[in-house]
Amino acid sequence: MSVSVSPLAPKSVPHLPPIKGVRLATAAAGIKYQNRTDVLVALLDSGTVVAGVFTKSKCPSAPVEWCRAKLKGAKPRVLVVNSGNANAFTGKTGREACRFTAEMASRAIGCKPADIFLASTGVIGEPLNAKAFDGVMEGLVAAAKPEPWLEAAKAIMTTDTFAKVATATAKLGKITVTINGIAKGAGMIAPDMATMLSFIFTDAPISARALQTLLSEGVSDTFNAVTIDGDTSTSDTLMAFATGAAAAHGAPRINSATDPRLKSFRAAFNAVLANLAEQVARDGEGARKLVEITVEGAKSKASARRIAMSIANSPLVKTAIAGEDANWGRVVMAVGKAGEPADRDKLSIWFNGIRVAHQGARDPGYDEGVVSRAMKNQTIALKVALGLGKGADRVLTCDLTKEYVAINGDYRS
Amino acid sequence: MSVSVSPLAPKSVPHLPPIKGVRLATAAAGIKYQNRTDVLVALLDSGTVVAGVFTKSKCPSAPVEWCRAKLKGAKPRVLVVNSGNANAFTGKTGREACRFTAEMASRAIGCKPADIFLASTGVIGEPLNAKAFDGVMEGLVAAAKPEPWLEAAKAIMTTDTFAKVATATAKLGKITVTINGIAKGAGMIAPDMATMLSFIFTDAPISARALQTLLSEGVSDTFNAVTIDGDTSTSDTLMAFATGAAAAHGAPRINSATDPRLKSFRAAFNAVLANLAEQVARDGEGARKLVEITVEGAKSKASARRIAMSIANSPLVKTAIAGEDANWGRVVMAVGKAGEPADRDKLSIWFNGIRVAHQGARDPGYDEGVVSRAMKNQTIALKVALGLGKGADRVLTCDLTKEYVAINGDYRS
Repeated sequence: MSVSVSPLAPKSVPHLPPIKGVRLATAAAGIKYQNRTDVLVALLDSGTVVAGVFTKSKCPSAPVEWCRAKLKGAKPRVLVVNSGNANAFTGKTGREACRFTAEMASRAIGCKPADIFLASTGVIGEPLNAKAFDGVMEGLVAAAKPEPWLEAAKAIMTTDTFAKVATATAKLGKITVTINGIAKGAGMIAPDMATMLSFIFTDAPISARALQTLLSEGVSDTFNAVTIDGDTSTSDTLMAFATGAAAAHGAPRINSATDPRLKSFRAAFNAVLANLAEQVARDGEGARKLVEITVEGAKSKASARRIAMSIANSPLVKTAIAGEDANWGRVVMAVGKAGEPADRDKLSIWFNGIRVAHQGARDPGYDEGVVSRAMKNQTIALKVALGLGKGADRVLTCDLTKEYVAINGDYRS
Repeated sequence: MSVSVSPLAPKSVPHLPPIKGVRLATAAAGIKYQNRTDVLVALLDSGTVVAGVFTKSKCPSAPVEWCRAKLKGAKPRVLVVNSGNANAFTGKTGREACRFTAEMASRAIGCKPADIFLASTGVIGEPLNAKAFDGVMEGLVAAAKPEPWLEAAKAIMTTDTFAKVATATAKLGKITVTINGIAKGAGMIAPDMATMLSFIFTDAPISARALQTLLSEGVSDTFNAVTIDGDTSTSDTLMAFATGAAAAHGAPRINSATDPRLKSFRAAFNAVLANLAEQVARDGEGARKLVEITVEGAKSKASARRIAMSIANSPLVKTAIAGEDANWGRVVMAVGKAGEPADRDKLSIWFNGIRVAHQGARDPGYDEGVVSRAMKNQTIALKVALGLGKGADRVLTCDLTKEYVAINGDYRS
């Protein structure tokens, strides 16, 4: 299994400033890994609100069910995240592990178990030994500080090859508010699967309902527009926490997502989501190339999305890109199988700006040598124009390499 | 690229007897390959009827469009199949190549171009040089014989590692009729994709309408229940030809698929389809294990099919099987993402008869060593019981190995 950092990792890591009302601590509870942190605790001041979107899996993990049930009217005080065990498909013991963890955290900080939010990533089907947190929870609460964002991102990694952090500021009224985010991406732990967790924090005074709307809208073109292998995890969790601390400095309280004063905040919030989502694609298992797929001229945005996802999830397209081949025949195939309106004779296809197919046939003008050189880029922009309507969309994925198969199939041999 | 025969190839190749009314010939037209046959011609006596099912791709190949247009009321006299070029995404020149080929064949045998059926497999987007057939068509018609079934199956191969043939007999009234079939499966030709072609021939006197019904019904649980990588080709073609020659020996003429006298024939016909479909799965690119996925206890058969396909197309399930790991956590994930009714806490999962998960958690009784040994089998039976209803279905697939990635990604490097 490869342990080197993805060649697609961002060249620099931004510094994340403190967010008033959020303190962080990490610990090594020894759930699965040795010699690394595997628990993150984020303490949230009173008055914090939360929004969340979760996996659409019909077989969600116990923490996903816990968070969904607590979301409405929540007064979140602690977020507890562990890596190494997903607490998924663990039945009654999984639910008990959630309750036990929440009770421990609530005792340590002095709140109700319902004020605790939970996320887990790692092995599926292994009972989570929540007692492992028992020895570290008090210490975590005592040690929590506003600064250690990078450490927080590291504690939730599984086989991610780099920690994923993003930050942005926005104006709310005349006040600058901050948005910090962390994420973990596609990582396999034997025997496990890719899981996406991400947590966003802000000091903006924004209501839970408005935050939920922002999050639900923002995720569509960011995290939901990323695919590594089409395999949806049982544990996917994206939560946003707003402490409201900026109100003390004069930031206006926002109760509706349609409030025009949210313009700058919405843009910054979506930029953080987009940044983290791209980092997830850049750390896809075995990835050597970041692939941006743009579909335009579709009947609708939804149709463009389904065609883009059909291309992004096609093993034949992904292996061709790994082989640095501008194999537009496979793109035609993936467009054709998507089940969406498409007219072969109006189809055009570009790789990194070079048109290789036009109006249903090979572009007579394309130079194989030029295209071959373009395919050596680390980033591949694949554009399809359908010529049917005005629907357009964009998704991110990565190539499919032998390393993906090795990471996910070799661990037993 | 691996050129050795798939380890999953059938241990013996059946002898296919002649079918009265069908004569076969193959030739090397040099379309793409050197030193091998790449054209098959099947001559069909007057009175033959035809049925067909084709790719659901919105970007079908020119021969698929040709056959679809000619199917109704057809009086098929010649089937011409070429390998090496798919004649797909070739625009106007593709349609012209179809017409040119049909005109050549119709002149050689003395019939109308509309009586010619065509199929192509190979490179996408390269114009098909149909003139290559010009030099061989007359000779093919002159040389056609009832015997060379295995040669016919070989001529349509692309990167298949073995020729796929199947045969069965059935009683129609008191007369024994014969059904022969050939197929090609998942093979990549740079720059190309997997394509499935199959042709079935019988001497049974059965009407085109009844044959079409049999074929449309039969394909659902055979060819349509096989997936290698979820990538639907632009060229998938399955056609059945019935010469009716057995009527001369007293076989009754059948005009309706609901005729009770079809019972034996229907069973034999479906057995040939199932046999060829399984051979396609056994020759999936890079395949080392044949995987049979059974889903039961679903709300409906259609729901069971979608869940089985979600499992069969999951890269994480397929790489785990390549790694000989009974990774039921990934099966749970694939069930959960299928979008079909499923209740995690009622789910049970078996690998080769060993129950590894039960009622939403790891089966406490399962022995890791026993399961590990079972996973070394060449054939893996993966069963999922949902416990919701009576819907059941079964699909075939293969594992996802580094060889798949190599076959489809390495050809340029």
